Amino acid sequence: MQPPLPGPAMILHRRVVLSAALAAPPLAAPTLAQAPAPTEAPRTLPARLLPVPRSVSAELQHRIAAPYPANWDHIPPDTAGWRALQAASAAEVDPLLPGLIEALRITVTPTTIAGVPAFDIAPRDMRPDRQGRLLVHLHGGGYVLYPGRAGAGEAMLMAGFAGFRCLSVDYRMPPDHPFPAALDDAIAAWRAVTAQHDPRRLGLFGSSAGGGLLLATLLRARAEGLPPPAAIAPGTPWCDLAGEGDSVNANAYVDNVLVSRTGWLGAAAALYAAGRDLRDPLLSPVNGDLSGFPPAILTSGTRDLLLSDTVRAHRRLRRAGVVADLQVLEGQSHAQFLDPTVPEAREAFNEIGDFLARYLGT
Amino acid sequence: MQPPLPGPAMILHRRVVLSAALAAPPLAAPTLAQAPAPTEAPRTLPARLLPVPRSVSAELQHRIAAPYPANWDHIPPDTAGWRALQAASAAEVDPLLPGLIEALRITVTPTTIAGVPAFDIAPRDMRPDRQGRLLVHLHGGGYVLYPGRAGAGEAMLMAGFAGFRCLSVDYRMPPDHPFPAALDDAIAAWRAVTAQHDPRRLGLFGSSAGGGLLLATLLRARAEGLPPPAAIAPGTPWCDLAGEGDSVNANAYVDNVLVSRTGWLGAAAALYAAGRDLRDPLLSPVNGDLSGFPPAILTSGTRDLLLSDTVRAHRRLRRAGVVADLQVLEGQSHAQFLDPTVPEAREAFNEIGDFLARYLGT
Repeated sequence: MQPPLPGPAMILHRRVVLSAALAAPPLAAPTLAQAPAPTEAPRTLPARLLPVPRSVSAELQHRIAAPYPANWDHIPPDTAGWRALQAASAAEVDPLLPGLIEALRITVTPTTIAGVPAFDIAPRDMRPDRQGRLLVHLHGGGYVLYPGRAGAGEAMLMAGFAGFRCLSVDYRMPPDHPFPAALDDAIAAWRAVTAQHDPRRLGLFGSSAGGGLLLATLLRARAEGLPPPAAIAPGTPWCDLAGEGDSVNANAYVDNVLVSRTGWLGAAAALYAAGRDLRDPLLSPVNGDLSGFPPAILTSGTRDLLLSDTVRAHRRLRRAGVVADLQVLEGQSHAQFLDPTVPEAREAFNEIGDFLARYLGT
Repeated sequence: MQPPLPGPAMILHRRVVLSAALAAPPLAAPTLAQAPAPTEAPRTLPARLLPVPRSVSAELQHRIAAPYPANWDHIPPDTAGWRALQAASAAEVDPLLPGLIEALRITVTPTTIAGVPAFDIAPRDMRPDRQGRLLVHLHGGGYVLYPGRAGAGEAMLMAGFAGFRCLSVDYRMPPDHPFPAALDDAIAAWRAVTAQHDPRRLGLFGSSAGGGLLLATLLRARAEGLPPPAAIAPGTPWCDLAGEGDSVNANAYVDNVLVSRTGWLGAAAALYAAGRDLRDPLLSPVNGDLSGFPPAILTSGTRDLLLSDTVRAHRRLRRAGVVADLQVLEGQSHAQFLDPTVPEAREAFNEIGDFLARYLGT
């Protein structure tokens, strides 16, 4: 594998490229039968210092500089431990919501949809160009965190930043309600919403587990003959619970939100799947047939542990002929665009909102 | 910075997010005056094994498994050393081109444009939907490699995969001709091409240094009153020669093409700039005013050392209101989508070609 002449990387790259191209006619169906097996893999990455980039806002630099979350690698040993973790997640967030609701100038009204608890979230002053449109929201948190109103924060940001009325679905979660409870609730809500609203005026969005659940909901809606929304916005969708993407390894310890799948995240996948094959498209919709899906905008960050989930979903949508935009935010770890204190968050929501508005009828 | 309750990453994340949101009204102009300085940075990344992902084609897995290029960190000590490196890069590639030209079923004709050497590259069988359109190509190689026909490989792929006639500009390079020689040649070529062709039928593309040069050429064309092309395709554009983006550090030793800016790449930046400020927009167009630019499609990979160059250019174009698509290819290091032996290369060129065709008039 050594080049015959000294030279920089691209020389070898080109040499390998073109040699292989010549060795493998026809070009349309390349093969590498003569290539050696990848015995050099896995590669050892050296330890190194990772500085805070100056290419982002000062506020985001502070986020990037933050240490790993305490207990990112704490895995509850039993059901009681998961329940405590779930309750703690809500207890952390709930006291902060009144101030956020005031700052965003929105209203948050508890409701139910098809018997599923939900929150009806609306700007206090509805923009004329958002009238008559509704976004259904599925929240993140690894399918286990943020029960109740704590899960609706992203929808509050969408209402506050992008001006849309949102219905945030408080779906059931493990440890008490593993798969398919969340999907059952999401599809029940979607069935009821589409019975009440013209689907051409509906959108569907959510990040992390909410983004994966969104895609799984569309797979099942299609199978059950329910109409799709006019557009979707999966944010860094956790659409591969088996963790087969590259960034789960390449961005491990680079992402300072999730840090590594060896922490609570991998355990949450198993908890939610409850023994089912993690590669099942309803658990990992990146393995599903995404043809016929509505226009989509996907969002991730360069340090995101789920960058590969996002870009694989994007490519899979494009391969299926779906209109699909991608934005990848500089220096951001998993779902950091949900942080309303960084200017990049408002920018991301503006981009998502403009995309959705382009495809939602009025 | 420790959370008061045990819990996974997102709890802390949400807590910080919402606390800061409340502390910083008005929300439209967040400040973090009370936040501590990022004293924890830089973060130490532990050494670790990076496996080859199974989420890409078998051919790409072989590329990802390859070791770092020999001499990626060899920096020529003097002008003679750079000249030798430059000559070696062409000598490596040139013997491979006849086979590639045959496999792609294209013609490659040496020509000149405004006195600048160039290559006129065309499919032997021109698709009807590509008639009357021309793409101008600026090649990569760190502004120092691939003089002569060796630089035209990407244009050959564009002609072969996407069916466009291309004019690949063999611009002058250091060590004998540093900045602004390359830009002078590119703008001279562009001036001549736009005098001969309706710019609504013209595109401009190139990767790595070619992508950066492309953006710089548009900045200067606008300043000189020359028309822009109808669409552009900067592939992983080297648009920040100062290396201020995050992926230059985050993907160091992850990218197995460029490996690290501490190798020849950083030295090539200094060689090209020849003492000028590396942040000058004509050297680093990510710092330029990109408003009024034509529709753009940008391409990178999740392991790309220049992922941040790409996504920062994408965001900067979007902020300027420019139509800009982004594709990020799973597991790929710098410019690996130029490897014609991986199925992902053809897919990337198809995507780029379809985008350009959408905006180029017929």
